Amino acid sequence: MIHMNRHYSDLKESYLFFRIAEKIREYQRMHPGKSLLRMGIGDVSLPLCPAVITALHEAVAMQGEKKTFHGYVSETGDPLLRAAIARHYQKRGVDIREEEVFVSSGASDELGDLLDLFDAASPAMIIEPAYPAYVDASVIAGREILFVSAKEENHFLPLPDETSDPGIIYLCSPNNPTGAAMDRITLQRWVDYANGKDAVILYDAAYVAFINDPSIPHSIFELPGARTCAIEICSLSKTAGFTGTRCGYTIIPKELEKEGMNLSKMWTRNRTTKTNGVSFVIQRGALAVFTEEGQKEIQETLSVYRANGRVFTEALDALGVYYTGGKNAPYIWVKCPEGKGSWEVFDELLEEAQIVCTPGQGFGESGEGYIRFSMFADPDDTIEAARRLKALWKK
Amino acid sequence: MIHMNRHYSDLKESYLFFRIAEKIREYQRMHPGKSLLRMGIGDVSLPLCPAVITALHEAVAMQGEKKTFHGYVSETGDPLLRAAIARHYQKRGVDIREEEVFVSSGASDELGDLLDLFDAASPAMIIEPAYPAYVDASVIAGREILFVSAKEENHFLPLPDETSDPGIIYLCSPNNPTGAAMDRITLQRWVDYANGKDAVILYDAAYVAFINDPSIPHSIFELPGARTCAIEICSLSKTAGFTGTRCGYTIIPKELEKEGMNLSKMWTRNRTTKTNGVSFVIQRGALAVFTEEGQKEIQETLSVYRANGRVFTEALDALGVYYTGGKNAPYIWVKCPEGKGSWEVFDELLEEAQIVCTPGQGFGESGEGYIRFSMFADPDDTIEAARRLKALWKK
Repeated sequence: MIHMNRHYSDLKESYLFFRIAEKIREYQRMHPGKSLLRMGIGDVSLPLCPAVITALHEAVAMQGEKKTFHGYVSETGDPLLRAAIARHYQKRGVDIREEEVFVSSGASDELGDLLDLFDAASPAMIIEPAYPAYVDASVIAGREILFVSAKEENHFLPLPDETSDPGIIYLCSPNNPTGAAMDRITLQRWVDYANGKDAVILYDAAYVAFINDPSIPHSIFELPGARTCAIEICSLSKTAGFTGTRCGYTIIPKELEKEGMNLSKMWTRNRTTKTNGVSFVIQRGALAVFTEEGQKEIQETLSVYRANGRVFTEALDALGVYYTGGKNAPYIWVKCPEGKGSWEVFDELLEEAQIVCTPGQGFGESGEGYIRFSMFADPDDTIEAARRLKALWKK
Repeated sequence: MIHMNRHYSDLKESYLFFRIAEKIREYQRMHPGKSLLRMGIGDVSLPLCPAVITALHEAVAMQGEKKTFHGYVSETGDPLLRAAIARHYQKRGVDIREEEVFVSSGASDELGDLLDLFDAASPAMIIEPAYPAYVDASVIAGREILFVSAKEENHFLPLPDETSDPGIIYLCSPNNPTGAAMDRITLQRWVDYANGKDAVILYDAAYVAFINDPSIPHSIFELPGARTCAIEICSLSKTAGFTGTRCGYTIIPKELEKEGMNLSKMWTRNRTTKTNGVSFVIQRGALAVFTEEGQKEIQETLSVYRANGRVFTEALDALGVYYTGGKNAPYIWVKCPEGKGSWEVFDELLEEAQIVCTPGQGFGESGEGYIRFSMFADPDDTIEAARRLKALWKK
């Protein structure tokens, strides 16, 4: 007789995006003429850069000819891509070697799969508000969750609590949803804490491409001690517009060992058992991201999103509203005016300014009282949304 | 403090393909002039069909233009592809609906991930010799394994043992490595057994494209009772040459429930939590497989592999050697002559005929005394290998 994983019953229904979609549908039914400014989405709006498109076409053409056809690829990643990513780190002075790079289908996929390395008895520490999958994947594993609250008083960058004893520590910097980015001093506190507690940091670095400030590390491996406690999970989704193309990578230092077990070797065994690697075609597209041409082209795209951030944060600065993010992150986390709730403000913005945001409450209870704006929207929509927000909140 | 998943220590080192590669290297070092006939590989050798290549190019082009660019895709699959796959079943008289189709990155990936739905306390029943990942994924989960031995006496198609009580039952038909394919009567016995035991069959249908005999079902859902006990895991790897391109699909019937939990709903929740779906570009390529043109073209490719099978089985028939497969499967499972061991015969074929096979012992102890040949090799190599085998074993 089969026994099901009963922890699925402990999951909360994920109402956030469903409820947003429903509210938008209802609004559009009532106001058929009005178009909406969609500032809530975490999806990119600009196409893949020309270097990537060329590389993808070339790889597709290779798959159509017997002489150049590629069958099974390495489960841990195309050696060319692993080497290119390692060089990308080395150029920034971070000594990562090719064999420490694991190509993935993206950060979400990897964050789910990596948990297989750990015993379910190890509690997970999650800074809330958080990307909902951290919580849900921990619930599915039946793992205890230790929540740490990010809030205005700690600038949405909480420090570790010495009295707690986590096994896994989720860190996301620059953060989704708060846009807060950890400086070296803050991140070092977490690295030292993890080493002291013999815990493993899962460092979600999906948004590092948006860092402008030189005091903010691009990789946790810039910090001393990180190689004995951290796994870095990276994505090309926001960096190079791969949300629907799917490719990312994970860094596991060779010397990362816990309870006498080597995590790099365990992950290699996991990948060779449970996957056949990432599509050859897609990996060739990803490889183009790390060429000189690719890097130049993705910066042009990123500069559009950064300009969106400037437009929006200038409007918020003019209003004198408290917010985090938007400068080193593609998200802006805005305090609701007059102590209002996040769904209340969502409704107001939709009704009165036709702006769609994301209510902070959807990222956990600590997110109540905040709304999230994304900088991935159309530039014209962003300018118009900033204008309307200023007009609305000046009242 | 972190606690690791200690079950990884229980995994046996996977020597099979490593040892084969090492033996080949050593042989080539000693005999630099000699070229090898590689009949061991489970990888395809022919390129993707033109319809797929065209569709991939079109999808890549869409990703390069803002107007046609696709960001995040549905985690459960592109609705167009899900619908096309459902129609593919309906055309063969199997009532599968769009929402019962889940697009995957391939069968290997899915077979690893699906285990997350089940409690580790549910034993897995595995017919041995087996695809090594069934065993390894079960070991990683700390799951008890109930082995069922496939052997000459049961034509490598064992029937269920009523006294055992599995939670999960792995079935692979046509089988890797034995090439044995279950007829309706045999498969019905397993379906009835699973329903009687309240177990879940994971039906690995990666090789159904090679079925010629009308008495062999293409889908477990052709059989009464399967909708209350089975999940079917399919792959385009061998069907359409997607080994390195990566796409497959899984069928979970809407009504499949165990312990009051609906498996389709659980899997939807798993996918939305732990993935962001399969690459838009790759799914568009997969969609072309299910067009009239695509189906015609993949049959042309498959006919090459089928012809390889005929060439090789005719040689074995002429030799009077016992084997299974080759007729409804891309693998031929050959009894070693004179009671020899599988590594011994591997060495002999390499040394004396420059043929590379796969020793059966690598698929579990029940595989000892057999070797596996693959029909995915080059047609000229296959003809030459059959000729040499006849010459060698006639002695």
